[in-house]
Amino acid sequence: MVSTTGSAFQLSIEISATMAFALSGVIAGAQKRLDAFGVFVVAGVAAFGGGTLRDVLLDRRPFFWVEHANWLWLLILLCLLAMTFMRRQHIPVTVRAIQFPDALGLGLFTALGTQIALDMHMPVIVCVLMGVVTAVFGGVLRDVFCNELPKAFYDHQPYAVIAFIGSLMVVILNMLQLSQALSVFLPATLMCGFRVVAIHQAWRLPSWQIEHN
Amino acid sequence: MVSTTGSAFQLSIEISATMAFALSGVIAGAQKRLDAFGVFVVAGVAAFGGGTLRDVLLDRRPFFWVEHANWLWLLILLCLLAMTFMRRQHIPVTVRAIQFPDALGLGLFTALGTQIALDMHMPVIVCVLMGVVTAVFGGVLRDVFCNELPKAFYDHQPYAVIAFIGSLMVVILNMLQLSQALSVFLPATLMCGFRVVAIHQAWRLPSWQIEHN
Amino acid sequence: MVSTTGSAFQLSIEISATMAFALSGVIAGAQKRLDAFGVFVVAGVAAFGGGTLRDVLLDRRPFFWVEHANWLWLLILLCLLAMTFMRRQHIPVTVRAIQFPDALGLGLFTALGTQIALDMHMPVIVCVLMGVVTAVFGGVLRDVFCNELPKAFYDHQPYAVIAFIGSLMVVILNMLQLSQALSVFLPATLMCGFRVVAIHQAWRLPSWQIEHN
Repeated sequence: MVSTTGSAFQLSIEISATMAFALSGVIAGAQKRLDAFGVFVVAGVAAFGGGTLRDVLLDRRPFFWVEHANWLWLLILLCLLAMTFMRRQHIPVTVRAIQFPDALGLGLFTALGTQIALDMHMPVIVCVLMGVVTAVFGGVLRDVFCNELPKAFYDHQPYAVIAFIGSLMVVILNMLQLSQALSVFLPATLMCGFRVVAIHQAWRLPSWQIEHN
Repeated sequence: MVSTTGSAFQLSIEISATMAFALSGVIAGAQKRLDAFGVFVVAGVAAFGGGTLRDVLLDRRPFFWVEHANWLWLLILLCLLAMTFMRRQHIPVTVRAIQFPDALGLGLFTALGTQIALDMHMPVIVCVLMGVVTAVFGGVLRDVFCNELPKAFYDHQPYAVIAFIGSLMVVILNMLQLSQALSVFLPATLMCGFRVVAIHQAWRLPSWQIEHN
Repeated sequence: MVSTTGSAFQLSIEISATMAFALSGVIAGAQKRLDAFGVFVVAGVAAFGGGTLRDVLLDRRPFFWVEHANWLWLLILLCLLAMTFMRRQHIPVTVRAIQFPDALGLGLFTALGTQIALDMHMPVIVCVLMGVVTAVFGGVLRDVFCNELPKAFYDHQPYAVIAFIGSLMVVILNMLQLSQALSVFLPATLMCGFRVVAIHQAWRLPSWQIEHN
């Protein structure tokens, strides 16, 4: 998560993407049969963990959820609504429904996270890493708190890899002195597009042929 | 854990509560058959993890255990004594013996953690969250390091929920401009009392009726 | 990991030790059948997690891997090479090959981590803790992210204990006003030596006789 200084359009993408991240945590909590506190923490970590870790690493304050504390109330509301109305048979449709806003989040949060590190004059690879952390580590920390091997580490889906390449693109467009709007939103759009195609085409990363002689 | 600027009475509560938190880590270490280093880390995380995470999030230094480094020696001593004299048959009585000091810790650390965030002019929900983190996340991180799903996430006991409501009460009493003694220690006492009642009455949070149609 | 302000000799030890830590992560990733992103994260956490956690706790910036960002490119290269050429039958020989550079890292990173905390005028036990964290917590966090109980917690090998004693020695030699070269590198050498002996003699820590009456 990053600061919402942008347009209403950007804000609406950020809200839907953050809610998608949170819902991935709600679903993980449902599958582990967590109580209300567990669901709230896991949803919160999924939604805000990536940006928070980035800001801890960059020693950057205030966090998004401190500056925009209303989002925490929204998160509580989302968890209460989910626990009141959501049933097991709703999980598959929810999983599908959050794919597109999740892809929007992948694009936007990666690009904004990279830009934040660039504005702090971090080295290229650190900027790329911060972009990836912003978009991917909410899900990683969600799985760690759920006592699961992080899905992002073994599902062989091009998710973090899309973030890596898109983040590198943000860095390069910045070096070319393009307008920030272009250098952030063009890669964000491309990442989102590639993620959607990757899901629909079921692209997989090559796996480590460790048994091969 | 928070800074001990208070009375000898408060200090004695803090010591007994911190030792109770540490002993919960020692017991977790025993159940996982950890070695001396493992027991020390898990006990230390259980005792100081919540306050440390709060201070990292609030960018606040020095940590309690840096300012009062003697407590770390005390923790090492506690672990060595436990590993020398504690046997499996002592675990159930220890679990019962730490319930009351643990409840004291829930009340006091939640209230003091909330007050710290209030003094830093954080938004209401962030203050509440910091109170909850202070009291609850030592146990959460203990379980994460023990490769267990955090008990606080699924045991359906009103522990974090008591912290949440008590923390909100600290915020409201502060808004009413009551003396800090009252606004911290009244909620602390109530949280402790409710926790004791919750244990004795075996109160459970309503669970998510996810299979219900 | 600590800053490399030392000689080419020290730098060569740091590189080989960091690569050994990273390879322990690569092997853990292989055993969990992780994809490229998972292998990279786990290797990176194993290599840089201890020093990064120390720096977060000490509120110290920039991190080693920000100041020397080339190491991150090197890490990516290492992971790609491993995933291209390493096969399951190479794991045992790799495990043996990294034992000595890992022991070098145990000695050097513990001593340098302790010295960093001493230079910040931390209390003795905090300096010792920071030395231990620097050398040991990369491996701990590697295992947490791999959803495993950290080996350092239960393997009963004198690894963290060697770091603890060596770190205490760094503190004492500093108190004796010896040259920093001596107070850092003498304990570093001794720790490395004891670690090598401990492996060859299969030394084990006494375990908690919890079933004993």
